[in-house]
Amino acid sequence: MSATENHEALLARRDRVLSPSYRLFYEEPLHVVRAEGVWIYDAGGRRYLDAYNNVPVAGHCHPYIVGAIARQAAILNTHTRYLSERPVELAERLLATMPSAMGSVILTNSGSEANDLAIRISRTVTGGTGVIVTDCAYHGTSDLLQGMSPVTGLPTGPDVFTIAVPLAMRDVGEFATLVEDALDRMRDAGVKPAALLVDTIFGSDGAIAEPAGFLKGAVEAIHGAGGLFIADEVQPGFGRTGAGMWGFQRHDVTPDFATMGKPMGNGHPVASLVTTREIAEAFTRHQRYFNTFGGNTVSCAAALATMDVIEREGLIENAAQTGTYLGQGLQSLVDRYEILTGLRGAGLFRGVQTVSGDIATRIVNGLRRAGVLIGSAGRGNAALKVRPPLSITRTEVDFLLESFDRILRDEPGY
Amino acid sequence: MSATENHEALLARRDRVLSPSYRLFYEEPLHVVRAEGVWIYDAGGRRYLDAYNNVPVAGHCHPYIVGAIARQAAILNTHTRYLSERPVELAERLLATMPSAMGSVILTNSGSEANDLAIRISRTVTGGTGVIVTDCAYHGTSDLLQGMSPVTGLPTGPDVFTIAVPLAMRDVGEFATLVEDALDRMRDAGVKPAALLVDTIFGSDGAIAEPAGFLKGAVEAIHGAGGLFIADEVQPGFGRTGAGMWGFQRHDVTPDFATMGKPMGNGHPVASLVTTREIAEAFTRHQRYFNTFGGNTVSCAAALATMDVIEREGLIENAAQTGTYLGQGLQSLVDRYEILTGLRGAGLFRGVQTVSGDIATRIVNGLRRAGVLIGSAGRGNAALKVRPPLSITRTEVDFLLESFDRILRDEPGY
Repeated sequence: MSATENHEALLARRDRVLSPSYRLFYEEPLHVVRAEGVWIYDAGGRRYLDAYNNVPVAGHCHPYIVGAIARQAAILNTHTRYLSERPVELAERLLATMPSAMGSVILTNSGSEANDLAIRISRTVTGGTGVIVTDCAYHGTSDLLQGMSPVTGLPTGPDVFTIAVPLAMRDVGEFATLVEDALDRMRDAGVKPAALLVDTIFGSDGAIAEPAGFLKGAVEAIHGAGGLFIADEVQPGFGRTGAGMWGFQRHDVTPDFATMGKPMGNGHPVASLVTTREIAEAFTRHQRYFNTFGGNTVSCAAALATMDVIEREGLIENAAQTGTYLGQGLQSLVDRYEILTGLRGAGLFRGVQTVSGDIATRIVNGLRRAGVLIGSAGRGNAALKVRPPLSITRTEVDFLLESFDRILRDEPGY
Repeated sequence: MSATENHEALLARRDRVLSPSYRLFYEEPLHVVRAEGVWIYDAGGRRYLDAYNNVPVAGHCHPYIVGAIARQAAILNTHTRYLSERPVELAERLLATMPSAMGSVILTNSGSEANDLAIRISRTVTGGTGVIVTDCAYHGTSDLLQGMSPVTGLPTGPDVFTIAVPLAMRDVGEFATLVEDALDRMRDAGVKPAALLVDTIFGSDGAIAEPAGFLKGAVEAIHGAGGLFIADEVQPGFGRTGAGMWGFQRHDVTPDFATMGKPMGNGHPVASLVTTREIAEAFTRHQRYFNTFGGNTVSCAAALATMDVIEREGLIENAAQTGTYLGQGLQSLVDRYEILTGLRGAGLFRGVQTVSGDIATRIVNGLRRAGVLIGSAGRGNAALKVRPPLSITRTEVDFLLESFDRILRDEPGY
């Protein structure tokens, strides 16, 4: 069977057994069979530069991380109701990257589970219910979080208040004003605040990063109203912004919760919530929390190995340096093509604004044909999302930029 | 450092960094360092028969499953928005074990994510909100599911109606009567039904399995009221009852949803929801669903390998045969000791009723000292929960039974 026949047959099998709620990327879906570093290979042997997936932070199938998973899986895979080294090591390692006020760790399987729990804890300890999110936010798949993820198009849940975050902020105080306005609306509605929940790189809003520090006043505002600040680090966490391990660091704030997921195990399902000791104790007075797979020894080994690689291979420095190089290259495309109207983001998380969702979709599919994988996000899906593994080199960035330039130059209709 | 010093030091480190909401099993927590088959080893080198953990269905650290995880992790670990073999293979494999009406698969990371989604889909497609659960039910950790898990002691959520399931049913129709009563209460409250959600081995209720078939009338009742039936297979699934892959098979019903988790990857975080094509399509008309880690190629490989082992090693047959042997042995203890008042369950999921939660706790801790790990469940935690890996042999069951007999005979105060 040829690669094409195999592709069609697999698509047909897939349509028969997987829920139609699943959607494949790209006009021509990519049939992937292996991956290594920044490259992902299709069934015909062609390779694609993966500049989209925020999970394989250290590069696909990193041998050190694969080895750590394999070794731990062969020795012990069990849960946190027994005493064992791995979850303790991981919690210590995570806390060492955090402000000293952050002292308590809970391990889960997905960013969704972490955010769902952060909201539950916030509501339990504040006695409030009101939650503020941005109007293109995405925070997870649980029933609770769907109502806090307006980018899905679903109605927001009860006591959820949205703010329209501008793609370019006027000044460092603008975001705080929007949060204060949401708190006013909450007060008018008789709702007591529980939390401000934001992705600290505003990924689904289109990668809004400037001016650094714009979250500071917002955190003061939610605290002033008796609510808590949840830094959703699922997208920016583990070094992506190039300015430290966590996105909130660029804004010089200490969150009440940092939630993390996607890149944490370089693909292994592991996620976490980090909070203050005080909040963890206040919650424990009301409720327990146990998660069967959350914090299992193998998931912890995967996360520890990922942190090892981030450190040993200098991936945060690379996110800063190669991220700057990528940013300069993308800026020069923005300067040259009218359909590209702006560049945002930080480190190796970049958003390129286009004039429309249609144009963004055509660029995404054009780049896929040219061997580069990116995606789109933001209002009307008009922003391009560029998020390669943090191990990407300048040569690989050059391939991305040259491909981007070529499709804009050669393909008709842009 | 001695094993005891190491143990104390690790406990202290753990208390410093993990949330106090975590609880360790046993009066003397078990510091585990490795596991193999039915045995789990502490830091001092002592081995314990694991007759509690429902996750390592094929035995701890099964080399075939570990190998499958390691191989797949080295080749490709990515998500369902690319076309790839593994999730399709897994969905086909799962559907082959199901009634033909079950035609659509969604993959998640935990039973909680699967149950949370099943409720969301039920409410979306029925337009109802009412959910019926048992009064000692446990269905997961999400915000939504905490309100459907009264065993946690938390208040039930809005539109959740509980039924008090008797430990011994009068007849095959009794459960249906209870569900009909809950539907009446729902109607009186003006709530439209969405779903009946039950663990088909009633694990947290104390392992209620007889008479087989008692779910049949209940499923007819919820269908008659326009609601759907969610079979929570997280506990009974993957052969534990010895009567087929799924707990609902003992009751001769076809669910609208089967949700599964714990044993699905023998410890790897993988879970799933299986539903009918019609329901999946109806849901897709309203909402999408995507889960970053859910259905990743490595999680699928772990689940496929676990299904291979269940089949090749005849684990369902062993659950039936060795389960019967275990049941006979436990029954003879029930016959001989007055503090044990009854035996329930099926296959290798057994509940031994004791006279009180205190007694159950003392037996659990006594067995732990004797080298056998079990747990407790049910109303007042007065039932002992015995759930060894499905690979357990008669010799190992003998060790369990002899240890059980010895602690009841030798220790004062029972």
